Amino acid sequence: MNIKGVNLGNWLVLEKWMSPALFEGTTAEDEYYLPRQLSKEVYEARIKLHRNSYITERDFAEIKSFGLDMVRIPIPYFIFGDCLPFLGCTEELDKAFAWAAKYGLQILIDLHTVPGSQNGFDNGGLSGVVKWAQQPESVEFTLQVLEKLAKRYGEKEALWGIEILNEPLTEKAWDTFNSLERYPAVDPEMAKGSAPVQIKFLKAFYKEAYGRMRKYMPKEKAVVFHDGFDIYAWKDFMQEEEFQNVVLDTHQYLMVAEMDGCQQNLEAYTTYVKEVLEPMIEEMEQYFPVICGEWCLFNSLACGHDTKGGRSVLNGMEGIAEEAFTPEEKKKIYRTLADVQLAAWEKGSGYFYWNYKLLLDTVNDSNWIGWDAWDLGKCVAQGWFPVQENTES
Amino acid sequence: MNIKGVNLGNWLVLEKWMSPALFEGTTAEDEYYLPRQLSKEVYEARIKLHRNSYITERDFAEIKSFGLDMVRIPIPYFIFGDCLPFLGCTEELDKAFAWAAKYGLQILIDLHTVPGSQNGFDNGGLSGVVKWAQQPESVEFTLQVLEKLAKRYGEKEALWGIEILNEPLTEKAWDTFNSLERYPAVDPEMAKGSAPVQIKFLKAFYKEAYGRMRKYMPKEKAVVFHDGFDIYAWKDFMQEEEFQNVVLDTHQYLMVAEMDGCQQNLEAYTTYVKEVLEPMIEEMEQYFPVICGEWCLFNSLACGHDTKGGRSVLNGMEGIAEEAFTPEEKKKIYRTLADVQLAAWEKGSGYFYWNYKLLLDTVNDSNWIGWDAWDLGKCVAQGWFPVQENTES
Repeated sequence: MNIKGVNLGNWLVLEKWMSPALFEGTTAEDEYYLPRQLSKEVYEARIKLHRNSYITERDFAEIKSFGLDMVRIPIPYFIFGDCLPFLGCTEELDKAFAWAAKYGLQILIDLHTVPGSQNGFDNGGLSGVVKWAQQPESVEFTLQVLEKLAKRYGEKEALWGIEILNEPLTEKAWDTFNSLERYPAVDPEMAKGSAPVQIKFLKAFYKEAYGRMRKYMPKEKAVVFHDGFDIYAWKDFMQEEEFQNVVLDTHQYLMVAEMDGCQQNLEAYTTYVKEVLEPMIEEMEQYFPVICGEWCLFNSLACGHDTKGGRSVLNGMEGIAEEAFTPEEKKKIYRTLADVQLAAWEKGSGYFYWNYKLLLDTVNDSNWIGWDAWDLGKCVAQGWFPVQENTES
Repeated sequence: MNIKGVNLGNWLVLEKWMSPALFEGTTAEDEYYLPRQLSKEVYEARIKLHRNSYITERDFAEIKSFGLDMVRIPIPYFIFGDCLPFLGCTEELDKAFAWAAKYGLQILIDLHTVPGSQNGFDNGGLSGVVKWAQQPESVEFTLQVLEKLAKRYGEKEALWGIEILNEPLTEKAWDTFNSLERYPAVDPEMAKGSAPVQIKFLKAFYKEAYGRMRKYMPKEKAVVFHDGFDIYAWKDFMQEEEFQNVVLDTHQYLMVAEMDGCQQNLEAYTTYVKEVLEPMIEEMEQYFPVICGEWCLFNSLACGHDTKGGRSVLNGMEGIAEEAFTPEEKKKIYRTLADVQLAAWEKGSGYFYWNYKLLLDTVNDSNWIGWDAWDLGKCVAQGWFPVQENTES
């Protein structure tokens, strides 16, 4: 298996930095507070237009033309429309299945947010709160969502698999990501008691989720679980025969490598990928097919300054006044990093680039210089990312 | 001069069929009635989000990667924000100039709508009304808009030129396009007295516009005029030395060829382009640089049924239930038509494809089968349109 895929992030799960206009006129930093700051009318107008325009049929044709064969689609816990004031989005996901079938792409559904949040990231939907695992009713709600997803999409031809839960933040990465400080909670009372998701809890949860989903999903469809940023914790996990077609997802960003001490130059990045990431993936590939479900070309070197692990102007970190490199130099940096990372993911079972598309503006707002490397469309257009060879016929 | 360009239609001037979600929940068929059917809050929410997301920096990078060197940007008469309830859009156009400069593209500003409408098309902003030329205050308003455009953008490095007025409907094409019947007016009173724009009037108007614009635009910037669908009427026009860098724009769609009697098969289309369009452009190129400012691959053959000159489900013409051709067959049709048309435009001074992007869905709504040929992004992604050779160093 050698998946070549891309994430459709910011479509059904919002991230402010990718689509600033959605959040305009509010102080909301995450999806939770957006409908609480806008009138119902305006909230619905924005969300509906966004969902109908951000990703459409043409994007599936384009993704196919990049030589990719799969998309990972982050979805919110309120997809079924049962959590006011949020709007459900099964209709959009249904359409995506039809587009995927037409353009010969497969879909990995990725449950990206849960009530109470599993990580406190802005992209978890509720900044600075990590309470999900401590709320039995939220956990049960999540299991029901997974069950409903499996029921609705489990037999669709374009379905490749369903990922149980994106990026639960465990003890191992708690200090590194420091989400409580990096994404301050609006309501300290709500954040009180936030704590890492325990690996032991997560293992039990994943097994329970597997059972609930497998009821409706044929064995040909993968059940994917995220490593919680603690990849070696899963060696002894779900190796029993009863668990079939289980895939391990790990997310590897160069900005995290930087936080891990990697120097901010091309040689150090290359060495890190080859000497830290590649062997890690090779080792874990003995236990599961391993996919790198999120990664990208973004790095501090190309930004022209130390981003302290990918902090943007939204986290109080300003960018530089103008590009630090010529277009040719940038291309060389990115292309080198694309090649070395792609080679690493090939040691496993493939990858999903994060992300397909962003709407930020690096020209009229220099704070975003370097951040467009998260946008696969821009990377391909500028030769930063190589068009993949089509493995079909 | 051999311009290779694409239109950014439906960004600052709306067309319902390209972006249905903008018009959702209304019976508005054009931009005039949209703010009159939505609350101010919802109208502004939709328009602002649309403008901030439909075209962004990434699209300029992508257009450059198609090997193109120019964009034609349709703008509305209310761009300066002085016609309530419409919202102005200089801010968006300003941004586009910055993106163009960064990605090495040039811009042709195209005044696409005027008060009272010059053609009665939905894309003229006011369906079924052709009264502009009969309203001296609308004509003077238009001249002032052109003057302000020249003043604001005339010296911008990324400006290639300004087009005075898109598609004024003259006597010659009045019956063919039949806009009063095809796009019925909402208010018959408002439509009363609609009539073709007279060539004589148009000539005087173009000369007046030239003078007003040239005050602020250096001679290196083109003043472009549309032929009003009567290309041979312009042979004796503006040949005097006082008029410099004047460019003739003609729009040539295969659907119009069909209305002109061209059979709906590949051979007939090819013959039409070679024997009707090519000689026409060659002849007029003796008088002006001639650009084909709008054209595309759309045709009834690939739609699988006679569209009667490009009528869609919005004009009461339903599509077919499923694709009439295999992907390979469609590719062959489109690619042949791309090659023959591109060769024709080379006899003149180049082209702008209509359009860069559409949001319609041919998979979940079979009425739109065949209509995605208007979308250059989809055409390139599927090999229907060849990536152009980059003429820069």
